[in-house]
Amino acid sequence: MDIATPTLLLDEKKCRQNIAMMVEKAARNQVRLRPHFKTHQSAQVGEWFREQGITAITVSSLRMAQYFAAHGWNDIMVAIPMNIREMGLVNELASRIQLHVVAVNPETVEALIGQLQYPVNLWVKIDTGYHRTGVTPHSHQELDHILNLTTRSELLRFAGFLAHDGHTYKQTEKEEIQTIHNTTVYLLNLVRDRYKNHFPGLQLSLGDTPSCSVLEELRGVDEIRPGNYVFYDLTQQHIGSCTYEQIAVCMACPVVAKHPDRNEIILYGGSVHFSKDNLLQEDGSVIFGRVVEFTPQGWSAPLADAAVVSLSQEHGVVRIHNKALFDHYRIGDVMGILPIHSCLTADVMKSYLTLDGRRLEHLSGVPQW
Amino acid sequence: MDIATPTLLLDEKKCRQNIAMMVEKAARNQVRLRPHFKTHQSAQVGEWFREQGITAITVSSLRMAQYFAAHGWNDIMVAIPMNIREMGLVNELASRIQLHVVAVNPETVEALIGQLQYPVNLWVKIDTGYHRTGVTPHSHQELDHILNLTTRSELLRFAGFLAHDGHTYKQTEKEEIQTIHNTTVYLLNLVRDRYKNHFPGLQLSLGDTPSCSVLEELRGVDEIRPGNYVFYDLTQQHIGSCTYEQIAVCMACPVVAKHPDRNEIILYGGSVHFSKDNLLQEDGSVIFGRVVEFTPQGWSAPLADAAVVSLSQEHGVVRIHNKALFDHYRIGDVMGILPIHSCLTADVMKSYLTLDGRRLEHLSGVPQW
Repeated sequence: MDIATPTLLLDEKKCRQNIAMMVEKAARNQVRLRPHFKTHQSAQVGEWFREQGITAITVSSLRMAQYFAAHGWNDIMVAIPMNIREMGLVNELASRIQLHVVAVNPETVEALIGQLQYPVNLWVKIDTGYHRTGVTPHSHQELDHILNLTTRSELLRFAGFLAHDGHTYKQTEKEEIQTIHNTTVYLLNLVRDRYKNHFPGLQLSLGDTPSCSVLEELRGVDEIRPGNYVFYDLTQQHIGSCTYEQIAVCMACPVVAKHPDRNEIILYGGSVHFSKDNLLQEDGSVIFGRVVEFTPQGWSAPLADAAVVSLSQEHGVVRIHNKALFDHYRIGDVMGILPIHSCLTADVMKSYLTLDGRRLEHLSGVPQW
Repeated sequence: MDIATPTLLLDEKKCRQNIAMMVEKAARNQVRLRPHFKTHQSAQVGEWFREQGITAITVSSLRMAQYFAAHGWNDIMVAIPMNIREMGLVNELASRIQLHVVAVNPETVEALIGQLQYPVNLWVKIDTGYHRTGVTPHSHQELDHILNLTTRSELLRFAGFLAHDGHTYKQTEKEEIQTIHNTTVYLLNLVRDRYKNHFPGLQLSLGDTPSCSVLEELRGVDEIRPGNYVFYDLTQQHIGSCTYEQIAVCMACPVVAKHPDRNEIILYGGSVHFSKDNLLQEDGSVIFGRVVEFTPQGWSAPLADAAVVSLSQEHGVVRIHNKALFDHYRIGDVMGILPIHSCLTADVMKSYLTLDGRRLEHLSGVPQW
C-alpha cells in the first residue's frame, strides 16, 4: 500500500450503500431525508447524496453552510442554536439560499428580527430528553413567547420544531432506542398540536443515526436528519446501528516500533489523527480503534484480540493478544484501524483517500475564507 | 470583543515568560534546552524561542520538521520512532539540516543504513518506566545489536539515548515527579556507562513538562526537551507544573443558548474546537475546560463553580453553580475557557489570535505540501 503517513481511507462503495439505505428508508416512510453533512464535510461525498436525489441538507456551523452553498446546495439547515455574532454571514447566505436556523431562547429570535435582511426559516429546538439544549415541551410560556416573536418579522418564517435524540447514543438495545424515538415523536406532536392552528404549515424534524438506523418505521414527523450513517464507526456498531461491514472509513497507519515483551505495536497515528474518543469495553478498559487487515477489496472485519489501547499526540499503541498475529506485522507495515467516532476522525484528518486512489476534501482541510 | 466564532487566544507576554523561564532554568543547570515544538507548531511562536537563544528543537513528525526547516531551523530532532516509510523526506531533510531521528528496534536502523544518503544523528529511545515505547535499560542484547548496527554506516551517527517520562503526567506531587525523574536519570546513566567507552561522545536527553517545570535541579543529562510549558493548560496546573496565571492560551466561544432551569449555558465550541481530553475532578466527574472572565489585560483566573461539563461536535455545555454569574452571561456574549490540553486544542484550532489582534499560524492550518 502506497501510504507513508496516517491516512483516512474511504470505501466509496460502502459509503454509497449507506447513503442509498437511508434514502430508501426515508422514501418508504414518506419522510424527507435532510442528511447531516457534519460527518463527512466533503463536497465530493455530498455529490454522492445529490446523485441519489437529496436536495436538502443539515450542517452544524454557518461556515459549513457557506462551504456547501458554494458547492451548489441551496436548502441548508444549521442545526445548532444560532450564533447571533454571525448575523453578517446569516444575511449573506439567506440572500442566496433557503437557510434554516435554530433558536432555543427568545433573545436569539429578537436578534434575528433586528438584523435580518433576507428571509430565513426558523426552527425551535425541543428538548425531548437528551438535555443538551432545547425548550422542554411543557414550557408553554417560553414557547408562546418565542412563537409570538416570530410573527413580528416578515423575514422570519417559523418552520417548525426539531429535536435531537442524542441519548440514543448511550443505548445498545433496539427496544430502548424505540422507546426514546417514540417518546420524542409523541412530544413533538404534543407541541405541534398546541400550535398548529396558528401555524398550520409547521413541520417536525428529528434525527440521530441510532434511531434512523435501528428502526424500520420512522413515522409521525416530516423530516429526519441522521448524519453519521454515511460512514458509521465502532461506536455505531456497538450501539447496533450498523455491522462492521458497513463501516466505510478506516485509518491506515505505519508501524514504527514493536515490543514483543508485551505484544504491543507502536503506530504513527495518535490523537491528532484519530481524535480522542474511546469505547468502553466489558472489562472496564477503553479502546481507541480496532485492527483490520487490508484486502484486495478494502479491509476485513476487525481481528479478535487486537485493539488500539492508548493514544498519545502522534503515537498509538496497539495490543495484540495473539503471538502469530503480532509477529505477522513488521516495522514499516501499514496497519488498518477502524475509528471509534468517524465524525471526529474525519475532522482531524482533513481529507480522504478512496480505495481507487482519489483524494477527497474535508472542510477542515480547506483554508478559511 | 470582536470574535464571531470559536477562537484560540494567545497571551504573548505569558508565553514569552514561559519560554524565558525554561531558558533560564536550562542555563542554570547547564543542560541544552531543545524545546518540543509540537505544542505550538507555529513559525511565529518559534521566533520567540529563537530570540531567547534557542537553536535546537524537537518535533513529533517529519512533516513538522519540514515546516520548521522551511522557517530556518537547522537542528531538529524528530522524537518519535522513525517512520521508515518516509525515507525520502528523511534524506531530503538530512541533505540540508542536522536531523536527529529515533529508533527503538534494529529493523528501523537497518532501514536507515540501507537508504540513507546524507548524515543523520540517531538516538535510541530507552523505556525508563512510562512503557509506551523504548528499549528497557536491561535489554543488553537488544541495545548491543542496535548500537553495533549503527557502526555499519558512516552516515548514521549514534548520538545517544533519550527518554520521555510520560508517567509524570499522572502525578500531582512534586516528590513523585522527583522520584520518576531521578529514576530516569539513573537509568539513562547506567546505559551510558555501559556504552561510553565505545561511544565516548554519547549524550543523554530527556524531557517532559512536569519534571522540567516542577524540579529546579535537572542534572545528569545533556539535554531537556519539554514542550507543553510554552502554553501550559489545566492538566499541567492540576499536576502542579504551573499556576493558572501561567496558562498562555484561552478559548473564546460565543454563548448560543441558556438554560436557567439547570444553570447551563450552551457555547458554540465543541470537540472539533477543544479536542476531547478531559480532567477528572475529585467528585468523580470530568470537565473539559474552566471559565475565565476577559479583562483589559487578557483574562482572569478561573471562576469558582463554573466549568465545561460536556462537549459535542460543535457545542459545549457550561454549568455555573452561581445564579448571579449565570445571569451575567447573555446570548451573544463571548466566554473565555481555559483548555484541558493545549497541544490538542491548538492542533484542532489551526491558528492563534494574539491579544493585540495578530493571527499566528499553526502547522495544522497550513495546507499540506
